[in-house]
Amino acid sequence: MSGQYTDLGALICELARSFYDLGWVSGTGGGICLRDGGRVVVAPSGVQKERMRPEQMFTIALDGALLTRPADPALRPSECSALFLKAINLRGAGAVIHSHSIHAVMATLLFDAEFSISHLEMIKGITGRAYHDRLVVPIIDNTARECDLADALEEAIVAYPETYAVLVRRHGAYIWGADWVAAKTHAECYDYLFRAAVEMRRAGIPTVMQGGTDDASLSTRRAAAADRT
Amino acid sequence: MSGQYTDLGALICELARSFYDLGWVSGTGGGICLRDGGRVVVAPSGVQKERMRPEQMFTIALDGALLTRPADPALRPSECSALFLKAINLRGAGAVIHSHSIHAVMATLLFDAEFSISHLEMIKGITGRAYHDRLVVPIIDNTARECDLADALEEAIVAYPETYAVLVRRHGAYIWGADWVAAKTHAECYDYLFRAAVEMRRAGIPTVMQGGTDDASLSTRRAAAADRT
Amino acid sequence: MSGQYTDLGALICELARSFYDLGWVSGTGGGICLRDGGRVVVAPSGVQKERMRPEQMFTIALDGALLTRPADPALRPSECSALFLKAINLRGAGAVIHSHSIHAVMATLLFDAEFSISHLEMIKGITGRAYHDRLVVPIIDNTARECDLADALEEAIVAYPETYAVLVRRHGAYIWGADWVAAKTHAECYDYLFRAAVEMRRAGIPTVMQGGTDDASLSTRRAAAADRT
Amino acid sequence: MSGQYTDLGALICELARSFYDLGWVSGTGGGICLRDGGRVVVAPSGVQKERMRPEQMFTIALDGALLTRPADPALRPSECSALFLKAINLRGAGAVIHSHSIHAVMATLLFDAEFSISHLEMIKGITGRAYHDRLVVPIIDNTARECDLADALEEAIVAYPETYAVLVRRHGAYIWGADWVAAKTHAECYDYLFRAAVEMRRAGIPTVMQGGTDDASLSTRRAAAADRT
Repeated sequence: MSGQYTDLGALICELARSFYDLGWVSGTGGGICLRDGGRVVVAPSGVQKERMRPEQMFTIALDGALLTRPADPALRPSECSALFLKAINLRGAGAVIHSHSIHAVMATLLFDAEFSISHLEMIKGITGRAYHDRLVVPIIDNTARECDLADALEEAIVAYPETYAVLVRRHGAYIWGADWVAAKTHAECYDYLFRAAVEMRRAGIPTVMQGGTDDASLSTRRAAAADRT
Repeated sequence: MSGQYTDLGALICELARSFYDLGWVSGTGGGICLRDGGRVVVAPSGVQKERMRPEQMFTIALDGALLTRPADPALRPSECSALFLKAINLRGAGAVIHSHSIHAVMATLLFDAEFSISHLEMIKGITGRAYHDRLVVPIIDNTARECDLADALEEAIVAYPETYAVLVRRHGAYIWGADWVAAKTHAECYDYLFRAAVEMRRAGIPTVMQGGTDDASLSTRRAAAADRT
Repeated sequence: MSGQYTDLGALICELARSFYDLGWVSGTGGGICLRDGGRVVVAPSGVQKERMRPEQMFTIALDGALLTRPADPALRPSECSALFLKAINLRGAGAVIHSHSIHAVMATLLFDAEFSISHLEMIKGITGRAYHDRLVVPIIDNTARECDLADALEEAIVAYPETYAVLVRRHGAYIWGADWVAAKTHAECYDYLFRAAVEMRRAGIPTVMQGGTDDASLSTRRAAAADRT
Repeated sequence: MSGQYTDLGALICELARSFYDLGWVSGTGGGICLRDGGRVVVAPSGVQKERMRPEQMFTIALDGALLTRPADPALRPSECSALFLKAINLRGAGAVIHSHSIHAVMATLLFDAEFSISHLEMIKGITGRAYHDRLVVPIIDNTARECDLADALEEAIVAYPETYAVLVRRHGAYIWGADWVAAKTHAECYDYLFRAAVEMRRAGIPTVMQGGTDDASLSTRRAAAADRT
């Protein structure tokens, strides 16, 4: 079993390096946890996420109890742990990613209580969603301490039973999936959609298409007309 | 022959990793196929494109019949296969790339039925095109299921016999070439042009220059004048 | 001891390669120094920062006296040395990073005497700062020669005893921390905040929230309303 | 000597990979040459610049005569060769870089006959230039065939004896230096400045500061005022 945890730890380290390159976990922020049955492997708090080593990982139970810890006494488990467990216990997530992506943060500044977007192919990358769907992501307000987000996160997860992500205003996003591949796929798709929404707003294009009407064709017609003048 | 297919499979994996870094195939989306005479090597559907292995590839005939499949029974061939075959059979493509690049998607939101651009050096990277040409890329509307795009894609390919790309609104682009080098070169040039068009529109610069008139010099003169005031 | 300096030299080289990828030290600009007790390891001036080798490093004392130098007689110590020593001697910094990031430069063009931002999670990455804090970074004017910045930098450090960064208008930023991990973490967080501020300004969102009022919710409400019309 | 050429060839390949990552030589475009005394090593035309191998290089004399060629009969020397030789023969360049960077192209669309910028630290990265200088880069119009640029390039080089770069409208830039390090440093600094100018124009900030007046402080004051309202 310990060998298996070492493997999950190595996977966390590899994914964190990749997320660093994407700008999701810079400045020691953000993180990821992986669940293995009744145990969850979580990274230490406040360390450089792109330089973690497998032997620095913690394992906790589904109720948050500490099961194993790294030898280095200076390490503490990620402050996201309580939040990770919300998605795991309420939604059966097998992996949870916490991203500080600037696209996520900008989206929380341009949308009010909900981020919403429709009619983009990347929406299909979210489990259970179709191209024509209006994809909604709840936005909760940030708190001074990360652990104080837990109640609001739980409320949002309960209120939006179909979501695989919750945005935190001026902070980032929590994104999960049935396993690490699904969580990573969701994280990539949501991040793309956050960025697309920011660029669409900048260009004056609505992010949600009204039923049956292709708003884009109107705006593109206007743009094309502008080209001709 | 099987060794050769393994090589094509390895090439697909390598190219997919590179396309992932460019943002073309994130979230398991997008893809690539390579043709070897009467056979086409295609990647599996719904997998992380940057983590594929050569032994996961399928080979299909030009009529879409499955020739070989990977040992893993959970894998299905890419949903793009029918679309890839359109470019292969109608245009003799040796390789087809399907990109979800955000630049391609933004271009489909800023243009109506056709993307068009002229007078950019990168246009010369498209086979048969010259600098002064007006490069046109047809835009077809997206459908809920990828396979339902096939008819519209065929229509566009037939209607635009000189194009090496078809944009899919709010989705991405299909881009091809006589071989994998030409397809990749085309994909890089088209993506550059999509991005340039988005930036030009944002700056109020027409993407197509009217015959004989250098519209840019007018706008740059205005910009330069603004600098002086 | 020399072995240890070699290690610090290797770390400088590794960090500089990473900073080059982030766009902080291109064109031979920018730099980093690491302190080891009473000695400071500094890179040579005017070399490609992403291609440095450990044996090219200098070591200087806290008063700027040269302690050791590389064998290559053509190398001179970084022109930033006097500036690095300000943060080291006045603030006890263990490492100082000098970045030419375009986000830092754009921030100095959009703010007057001070850069300020509040209510972003990444603010918590700066030692001693909380989410609700108004983070202020002094901006000093650039000079023709880098060494002439020393007095203004010292003044800013003294006037802003809580800052871990000073912006230099049209030039970049000096950022430090208690050790190299803190300095790098600060540099990543500040750079994120500089970029976020530029994007917020572009979107018409104030970078500082007025006491108790969430200005963003107003602007997002307006944006949401615009979506509906 | 042949060993030395192999080394230069390897260096060209390595630099080209790095320039590809920067977006300067995608789609087989752009290039680089290195001079070794009276010989110039140039890459082949129309190949993927990030995948070149040292044995694919040509060497030409300063008058353009072909000295050595690769074994592969399908390869032709870069179409930039005549242009590279202009900078080499007129300015004694030891290396010339041809970039298709989108920042360079956007700069040519926002400026008229000359790109100009002042008061940015990165200007100091250009040989002989100081911070307060107004850096000017001539912009020549593009031609249908790359070789037809030679006369206009020569004119610009002669007319601007201090420049290390010539922009080609809607195409890119030719940038050189006394050796490959200087050429690469110049290319990085110019590209940074092209990008900065585009972002400054977008933010309404003049790229050239009027004598003695800090225009930026005015605009930042306005922006700061806007923040307060």
